Amino acid sequence: MLAVIAGAGLLPRLILEENPGLLVRFEGAGCETDAAEIVEARFEQLGVLFGELKSRDVTDVCFAGAMARPALDPSSFDPETLALMPRVLPVLKGGDDALLRLIAEIFEEQGFAVRGAHELAPGLVAPAGSLVGEPDAGQKQDAARATAILNALSEQDVGQGCVVANGLCLGIETIQGTDAMLGFVADTRARHGDGGVFVKRPKAIQDLRIDMPAIGPETVVAVAAAGLSGMCIAAGSVLLLDRPAIMDAAVAAGIVLWAE
Amino acid sequence: MLAVIAGAGLLPRLILEENPGLLVRFEGAGCETDAAEIVEARFEQLGVLFGELKSRDVTDVCFAGAMARPALDPSSFDPETLALMPRVLPVLKGGDDALLRLIAEIFEEQGFAVRGAHELAPGLVAPAGSLVGEPDAGQKQDAARATAILNALSEQDVGQGCVVANGLCLGIETIQGTDAMLGFVADTRARHGDGGVFVKRPKAIQDLRIDMPAIGPETVVAVAAAGLSGMCIAAGSVLLLDRPAIMDAAVAAGIVLWAE
Repeated sequence: MLAVIAGAGLLPRLILEENPGLLVRFEGAGCETDAAEIVEARFEQLGVLFGELKSRDVTDVCFAGAMARPALDPSSFDPETLALMPRVLPVLKGGDDALLRLIAEIFEEQGFAVRGAHELAPGLVAPAGSLVGEPDAGQKQDAARATAILNALSEQDVGQGCVVANGLCLGIETIQGTDAMLGFVADTRARHGDGGVFVKRPKAIQDLRIDMPAIGPETVVAVAAAGLSGMCIAAGSVLLLDRPAIMDAAVAAGIVLWAE
Repeated sequence: MLAVIAGAGLLPRLILEENPGLLVRFEGAGCETDAAEIVEARFEQLGVLFGELKSRDVTDVCFAGAMARPALDPSSFDPETLALMPRVLPVLKGGDDALLRLIAEIFEEQGFAVRGAHELAPGLVAPAGSLVGEPDAGQKQDAARATAILNALSEQDVGQGCVVANGLCLGIETIQGTDAMLGFVADTRARHGDGGVFVKRPKAIQDLRIDMPAIGPETVVAVAAAGLSGMCIAAGSVLLLDRPAIMDAAVAAGIVLWAE
């Protein structure tokens, strides 16, 4: 039995559409998805959750969608959660990646297999090739330079996205995310020509089982608003949420979209 | 004899204060500096300029201050300029670095030695050590992470600046420059804590004789506006324009400033 541990957005529903399973909704985590079978959970009561999942014969878990970090109420910690705090607290201050890795580790220690969304719903990622239009030589060159920049940064745990236009790097994604970076490019590129390509890839050290880069139609709109003409995603490792709407948005905005 | 080939800003004057020499002002390049001895020049008449410099026994040239790229009038090219065009034109479309490297190369072919501002006025750069205040352990750690990010990018010809706060990377400088990047951090950091450090360093492949990173008091003001608490510059290779005003601004804004 699969349990989808659900954050915000469409992903939990898309995974449950293709896999039998139940939905785990943490209080305050921002999940708005419904399902036939739901387990309501609290971050302070992980022992209760583990027991509940085991009693329902859950063997696999999938973390789906970004979860908000709620304020914790220490007075309601159950013994299991309390015992985990010495490991969780130091990581709470750091980046999302470290926290997610620890949470996945904790679920694995409890005997659950942590599965990636791309394994459970392979239709959510794109194989290498064109999705909308065909990149021209200049777009391919810009995409190659952006990819080289992301690869160089990858070991530093920075950068899921990069914008290059006519060989010039106009933006590198930092912790504020894709939309902030594309907004920066839109606001500041005036003197630096037209066109260009946004490349989205996971970091080399990113654990795709718990944290996959994702794009949606709003990403395509932001790419167009930044004056770019193309978007290139990593084949097999960027979630398309959802694909028909993304492709419609790319066609409407005249954006070439491909995976490689 | 030294010729300072002058762009905008304070740098040409600061170099001439410490070195005997003449000032070369290109029409339309944005130089507002005066000097005892001035040669007015045009980008279309490089042969005339080379002759003039040689007749005045100029042996060394120093490129100082950013130059605007004026529209060229091909009808007034002299033969030397015309002969250089097959090399200059392809580079005019690219980044500043390639153009500056080519211009330095052309002056060297004419027999001039190209000198860096930091050689001619060593007081404009800072040796390793504190300038204002002392960085604490957290600031040193943030600076080390920002430096690691810049080093990783260096071979890609991207990144003279990076902001890290509490271990999180909030900004990486792209072609739009330091002010745009610090503005982005100011606008987008809300959810990502206080403090943090801006690190400014040349790229590994940067030719310091023709293009040095520089900071001014306005940089310190932008660092403070981005909610940062510290600024770390590369020892010996970032120009301080001008140092007393920069230090005053750092003291006024409560910014720790050091070189390493």
